Amino acid sequence: MSRVRTNLQTIIAANVRRRRLELGLSQEQFAEIAGYHRTYIGAVERGERNITVSTLSAIAAALKLDVNELIAPND
Amino acid sequence: MSRVRTNLQTIIAANVRRRRLELGLSQEQFAEIAGYHRTYIGAVERGERNITVSTLSAIAAALKLDVNELIAPND
Repeated sequence: MSRVRTNLQTIIAANVRRRRLELGLSQEQFAEIAGYHRTYIGAVERGERNITVSTLSAIAAALKLDVNELIAPND
Repeated sequence: MSRVRTNLQTIIAANVRRRRLELGLSQEQFAEIAGYHRTYIGAVERGERNITVSTLSAIAAALKLDVNELIAPND
């Protein structure tokens, strides 16, 4: 089955990275705010982590976004 | 910090259940379509599972919903 849409993990990765940079935060600074390790945030931003909905909520809150903004595909 | 919003796990639980019933499916039928075990779907519908984004995508697809519909709070 062919899928045109980028998968959710990749969308979230791009959104986390873009929003973090928008907030002027390094991965390390953001990791501290969000309560995760810097290497974990790095992996999320590379789309390497299949995160849970509770992590999704925590990351959205730390980025001052609603969860639906964090999962929205961006052109 | 006080949170007015219901947490995401609970929102998803209610949405899965409502949408499954809307489609006229039993938990068992839906579980088969979605590719999960009936007891797992039951646990998701009780808000007992902190599911991953890939499961979120798979459940949304099986319910013919977009992921953002699956995480939207309902009045």
